Amino acid sequence: MTTQALVSEIIKKQSFLCIGLDVDMTKIPSHLLELDDPIFEFNKAIIDATHHLCVAYKPNTAFYEAYGLKGWESLRKTITYLNMHYPEIFTIADAKRGDIGNTSSMYAKAFFEDLAFDSVTVAPYMGKDSIEPFLEFQGKHTILLALTSNAGAFDFQTLTTEGNPLYQTVLETSKGWKNSENLMYVVGATKASYFTEIRKIIPDSFLLVPGVGAQGGNLAEVCKSGMNSQIGLLVNSSRGIIYASSGVDFAEQAAQKAQTLQLEMAVLMPKT
Amino acid sequence: MTTQALVSEIIKKQSFLCIGLDVDMTKIPSHLLELDDPIFEFNKAIIDATHHLCVAYKPNTAFYEAYGLKGWESLRKTITYLNMHYPEIFTIADAKRGDIGNTSSMYAKAFFEDLAFDSVTVAPYMGKDSIEPFLEFQGKHTILLALTSNAGAFDFQTLTTEGNPLYQTVLETSKGWKNSENLMYVVGATKASYFTEIRKIIPDSFLLVPGVGAQGGNLAEVCKSGMNSQIGLLVNSSRGIIYASSGVDFAEQAAQKAQTLQLEMAVLMPKT
Repeated sequence: MTTQALVSEIIKKQSFLCIGLDVDMTKIPSHLLELDDPIFEFNKAIIDATHHLCVAYKPNTAFYEAYGLKGWESLRKTITYLNMHYPEIFTIADAKRGDIGNTSSMYAKAFFEDLAFDSVTVAPYMGKDSIEPFLEFQGKHTILLALTSNAGAFDFQTLTTEGNPLYQTVLETSKGWKNSENLMYVVGATKASYFTEIRKIIPDSFLLVPGVGAQGGNLAEVCKSGMNSQIGLLVNSSRGIIYASSGVDFAEQAAQKAQTLQLEMAVLMPKT
Repeated sequence: MTTQALVSEIIKKQSFLCIGLDVDMTKIPSHLLELDDPIFEFNKAIIDATHHLCVAYKPNTAFYEAYGLKGWESLRKTITYLNMHYPEIFTIADAKRGDIGNTSSMYAKAFFEDLAFDSVTVAPYMGKDSIEPFLEFQGKHTILLALTSNAGAFDFQTLTTEGNPLYQTVLETSKGWKNSENLMYVVGATKASYFTEIRKIIPDSFLLVPGVGAQGGNLAEVCKSGMNSQIGLLVNSSRGIIYASSGVDFAEQAAQKAQTLQLEMAVLMPKT
């Protein structure tokens, strides 16, 4: 999917909501556990109930890998269902991969070709040759961790490296990589005060913003300094939406939570 | 597996060799492609031919994920085969994972419980709460990226952060994490001149050392400044061993390459 198609969808739906499909078998409604593939059935119900309120879905691969082959099968069925029924939706494999060049190429093949996601999250620690193999894929997007939403972000990401915090050096350096126009960045909502500095370095890039909801980030603050003329934000909520209810009405309740966020977003978007 | 059991195996075999099972379908002998699971058959043959010459195997998950469900199944069969037939071997899932706390717990479950690896590689960028969930598993080892073997290591890992290179800060900081005795570290063989400084910070830890062979690292140099009284090194070779031949004799040729390295290692080990 092109960035322009994503922006059009955001404007049409008046939403820049991404829903995180982090499915934990211990948290899904018990009536689903009798089905052959509870994880996929849960996702399918959530997607069918919320697709008109969001522009992206983001399964985190950890939650699927934890269930082994069966989990990987659920992930494949989920992305196939999304691509078949809702091709206008932007899909994100939240995998945080990164390895030496020939190995990163295999990861890129796994997520962009085998599973056919629109984008994948990657970690910057191993530098340029660990990320450029992902950037080669045209029409695909590589979402680089910059400043994450967790407490551990302060261990290394904010350390001063030759005059600037490491996350700023990551942003600045990545702009020089080949096909860097295919980059987006992860910036946590819990770090809203950092968005102004970040937008000075990457004014035009899309930011994937986790941390609204369960982690405590504030949507209005994120928009105030993170939004650009093309919106430029995908704000993610996972647990706050998908576990709104553990009853048979879980999908409807999830849609209500998603709609609450969508309506907040519509107010925060520029009037066209 | 305990560290002491690993050290005993190293001394017994006079080898600290780790063989990387990075299986690319385009590089394995063509006669295997007719079989139902070429990747597992390739691994099984390599393992049977080399297990007496090495102390560890390290499948890199990228090479399995690239083949989707079928690849994940090959990985499961490989680790199951290793655990069943060669329980004295140390197993490493080279996955380079790392995420916010509740998500890292899922990755730890995937690799330590579902797949039953002895260890997994992780990336430090997201800090303490992204790694501690792995460290909770007793009898398991978490191998943190410190200074990697690729060119991109110089993009961020060697930047000066408040007086020290970032990789040294990662080493120093990680020592303060809960259950840090379960940590090992990745240090590339291509960075042999850095081992002296690294050993000042973590004198007792095991180092997983990729980059000997195809990437150009020198074994004697690594040992000179990286070895400690418990050996403390696992030196990995992947392509240089497993692709020694593309003929029907691929496993024997791989064993010859492994033996060459084992004999070099025996010479470099302290006499007992």
